[in-house]
Amino acid sequence: MLDFNFKNPTNILFGKGKIATIKECIPSESRVLVLYGGGSVKKNGTLDEVFAALHGYTLFEFSGIEPNPSYETLMKAVELVHKESIDFLLAVGGGSVIDGTKFIAAAALFEGEPWSILEKGGTPVKKALPMGTVLTLPATGSEMNCGSVITRKSLQAKLAFMSPHVFPLFSVLDPEKTYTLPLRQISNGVVDAFVHVVEQYLTYPVNAKIQDRFAEGLLLTLIEEGPKALENPKDYEVRSNLMWASTLALNGLIGAGVPQDWATHMIGHELTAMHGLDHAQTLAVILPNLLEVCRQGKREKLIQYAERIWGFNEGDNDQRIDAAIDQTRKFFERMQIKTRLSDYGIGTDSIPDLEEKLKAHGMIRLGERQEITLDVSRKILELSL
Amino acid sequence: MLDFNFKNPTNILFGKGKIATIKECIPSESRVLVLYGGGSVKKNGTLDEVFAALHGYTLFEFSGIEPNPSYETLMKAVELVHKESIDFLLAVGGGSVIDGTKFIAAAALFEGEPWSILEKGGTPVKKALPMGTVLTLPATGSEMNCGSVITRKSLQAKLAFMSPHVFPLFSVLDPEKTYTLPLRQISNGVVDAFVHVVEQYLTYPVNAKIQDRFAEGLLLTLIEEGPKALENPKDYEVRSNLMWASTLALNGLIGAGVPQDWATHMIGHELTAMHGLDHAQTLAVILPNLLEVCRQGKREKLIQYAERIWGFNEGDNDQRIDAAIDQTRKFFERMQIKTRLSDYGIGTDSIPDLEEKLKAHGMIRLGERQEITLDVSRKILELSL
Repeated sequence: MLDFNFKNPTNILFGKGKIATIKECIPSESRVLVLYGGGSVKKNGTLDEVFAALHGYTLFEFSGIEPNPSYETLMKAVELVHKESIDFLLAVGGGSVIDGTKFIAAAALFEGEPWSILEKGGTPVKKALPMGTVLTLPATGSEMNCGSVITRKSLQAKLAFMSPHVFPLFSVLDPEKTYTLPLRQISNGVVDAFVHVVEQYLTYPVNAKIQDRFAEGLLLTLIEEGPKALENPKDYEVRSNLMWASTLALNGLIGAGVPQDWATHMIGHELTAMHGLDHAQTLAVILPNLLEVCRQGKREKLIQYAERIWGFNEGDNDQRIDAAIDQTRKFFERMQIKTRLSDYGIGTDSIPDLEEKLKAHGMIRLGERQEITLDVSRKILELSL
Repeated sequence: MLDFNFKNPTNILFGKGKIATIKECIPSESRVLVLYGGGSVKKNGTLDEVFAALHGYTLFEFSGIEPNPSYETLMKAVELVHKESIDFLLAVGGGSVIDGTKFIAAAALFEGEPWSILEKGGTPVKKALPMGTVLTLPATGSEMNCGSVITRKSLQAKLAFMSPHVFPLFSVLDPEKTYTLPLRQISNGVVDAFVHVVEQYLTYPVNAKIQDRFAEGLLLTLIEEGPKALENPKDYEVRSNLMWASTLALNGLIGAGVPQDWATHMIGHELTAMHGLDHAQTLAVILPNLLEVCRQGKREKLIQYAERIWGFNEGDNDQRIDAAIDQTRKFFERMQIKTRLSDYGIGTDSIPDLEEKLKAHGMIRLGERQEITLDVSRKILELSL
């Protein structure tokens, strides 16, 4: 096991009706800004429930945080925060709304141009407004971590920052609040969580037995429950297991003390920024091909993955690895996400531009051993066509 | 999955040499009381390392916190805290030193007689001194939870309290600091952690797939690594896995959203209070017999346990349960802990007194369904002879 520090102070309020209890977590007298996305939380009643729970606070609203939340939109919220002396942020939505709210929390108290929080070698965040979340789309784990990914449309850039100051103080996880999600978002969420786990698991062994077994527990749960959620979106138990799995997939726990990869995400971010693919679509395209290209470096863990996740306990190791990668792709397809660039109308001609963007964003040595150079990324993209 | 709230803010500093970093976690200007047990941390150099790391602080020492820390001893430390205006506590040791320090942290700021924190239906703790820990004996999980068990010798009482105010701010987990532990303490630690997991796992199913798999991951790790630690106490990887397993066994995570038992612990506490057995010895004696007596109520999870932990995948269910209980007992014996009351010189004549104590401490309906009445506890004790 590698050395690590692990701290995660977010208070998880899990279960039916937990929105009603958030008052206990927000200081009275707070001026609360409620942030959300395109309005689905308005239609399905979640927002009403939130406002009812916040009776007595001075409330403000900011809507329109888009998927892949943009710097341009978020800076409007920062203006509102300043104008109205907001002192608590409540994100109601999925990873985009929560990531966006984290950026707003940090930007509102930042000295200087907030974009510098995100630029390569970004300026560290020293303080942020307190925030909570009501999660409606289990996927990114943002509700229980201190990371955030923001897009700047004008630069076609999608960049991340992390700061312990943007851990949500609390997050409500009510599985019933996910019942009205479109199937596409269920699919995206499951695949996103799955790849989060894989990025922290399929590297090289460091004899971290617990982290491995926890990661495997999450993968097995996602594989078992994901397709069921598509078949029966109102199965509370299925939704509960998926919701808790996606939170634990990226709350720092399974990644503590082990090598991490994240190249699939980094390459995927460029695909979203340039071609507008959903985040999970990019992961479903890139991951199987990355595993193929990096199979030597990941060999031991790939064999473990083949055995413990897909039950390939016997036979030639290379064949078992082939079969495990194949099963991974098939799982994404079973979750109704296409796994080829060509499925999204992206051809060979896009690859030089993608490579250029990776270079511009400093993504020139990715992966757990920094062996994924631009050349390797190009190979992965070519194999993904 | 059941509803739950989960919050655990302790900062874990895991790895070789992490003691040197604790200064970052303790406010400068603090008047720090360093608390420890019988002096082994003095002999093996851990205490010197702690003092070196705390260079520049105003330091005080309190030694002599005993296994099953006593109210009588701890109140002396409370006096010292008041006399010297101590404002930070640093526990250096195992679960007893840490539990004791939690009580001191709460008692020092408590209005009224601190024993009332522990009495049945105890007075809630409203504040506590901040504290950190340097863990030297992985076992109880106290380094990353908000519970504490205290003994009052004069009353032969061993009682617990919990409060979010006594979460350690940080805990150093350096596996090398466990190299000099006596074998008996290694054994005790592994068995204690094992039973912590079982108390949160072997109840009845609520379709909490992740909690089950995490619990199973911890059990398998303890079974694999425990005996290795007895054979080769200086294997860093073995010690790392055991250390992290015992912390995660009782930090609230695997118990969130599932029923919990804890009857083995409650009955065991009476054995320690009356007969002085090590905590883990009491667990090794009681657990297998509790599983036997409660096998109907725990049937489904016992079958899952037989399959996933002991590999009994086929055959008659009752035989598989028998075999799993038998393997559990054998594992404790492989960890060199005896599993019969008679091994400790305790006979039938002690049972009425134990029953009386259980009654006096309100332990009249134990277990995940409150079905372990005094009659059932007596049966378990009789079967444990």
